Amino acid sequence: MPNQADLKRSNDAFQSAFTQGGLPMPPARKLAIVTCMDARLHPEKFLGLAIGDAHVIRNAGGRVSDDALRSLVISQRLLGTQEVVVIHHTDCGMETFENQDLVKVIERDLGADAATTVQGRDFLPFKGMEQSVRNDIATVKASPLIPKDIPVYGYVYDVKTGGLIKVD
Amino acid sequence: MPNQADLKRSNDAFQSAFTQGGLPMPPARKLAIVTCMDARLHPEKFLGLAIGDAHVIRNAGGRVSDDALRSLVISQRLLGTQEVVVIHHTDCGMETFENQDLVKVIERDLGADAATTVQGRDFLPFKGMEQSVRNDIATVKASPLIPKDIPVYGYVYDVKTGGLIKVD
Repeated sequence: MPNQADLKRSNDAFQSAFTQGGLPMPPARKLAIVTCMDARLHPEKFLGLAIGDAHVIRNAGGRVSDDALRSLVISQRLLGTQEVVVIHHTDCGMETFENQDLVKVIERDLGADAATTVQGRDFLPFKGMEQSVRNDIATVKASPLIPKDIPVYGYVYDVKTGGLIKVD
Repeated sequence: MPNQADLKRSNDAFQSAFTQGGLPMPPARKLAIVTCMDARLHPEKFLGLAIGDAHVIRNAGGRVSDDALRSLVISQRLLGTQEVVVIHHTDCGMETFENQDLVKVIERDLGADAATTVQGRDFLPFKGMEQSVRNDIATVKASPLIPKDIPVYGYVYDVKTGGLIKVD
């Protein structure tokens, strides 16, 4: 567990300076973000979010998967968020492979049985980050589980500049 | 879009001070975190992660859903992470409902057709955050898609104190 001791030390320092212990469960800004797990993205930082401000849903690609929709439904119906922002980014790993490539890597590294369990599975790679943002906005808007009057919009985050580019 | 102008303003300020534009795609600390979307959790802050350090996967509950496994496989096989940390937290919304409660809220707010689409769906609520961490660690370890020598461990984050409590 190479990182364990260091994470603990950092958390001890964080905890001793922590002053936001009284916040309620519902996000103060009634906002939910869907974005990529990429290590270069610190969404709270690049969006100026304070502790307690917004739900942040992250996965490989920042895709509006079924599981992201599960999270959005809980966010909206039980915790009052009323706005969705989808953020993909430049230099994303999801643009570097197709499903069959990943199945082959799984077979090479983990064996034929592991590869069999993911045959035909969609790992949600994409080509073109602006179009993928549009597609995921469309998925949110088309879901019967999302109210029609919820604003849904998106950006591409540029990992070289730290800037957000609006996707129209 | 109540938050749009403010997010843009915050990002403009972030971008003008941004200096980490040259980082590679693979996480520097070869680490992947799975945690909850909760607005009170800023995992990079409470773990002391720098930009580029770790993949952060977040959903309602911080559950190791099929989609979280999809993200972990991409993180490990394509981007070289070799350690998984699962973090749930105190005062989690996932402990406040059962599946049928949420279906009823969906029916009340969005109509009978919407509720029909989620009949029998597991929204992954839980009772007991330490046990849910143990269950999700077990899910990672049992997956044929995760190498047996990858360290997987977990914590509960206390939203009142900012501290991490190790789950054994």
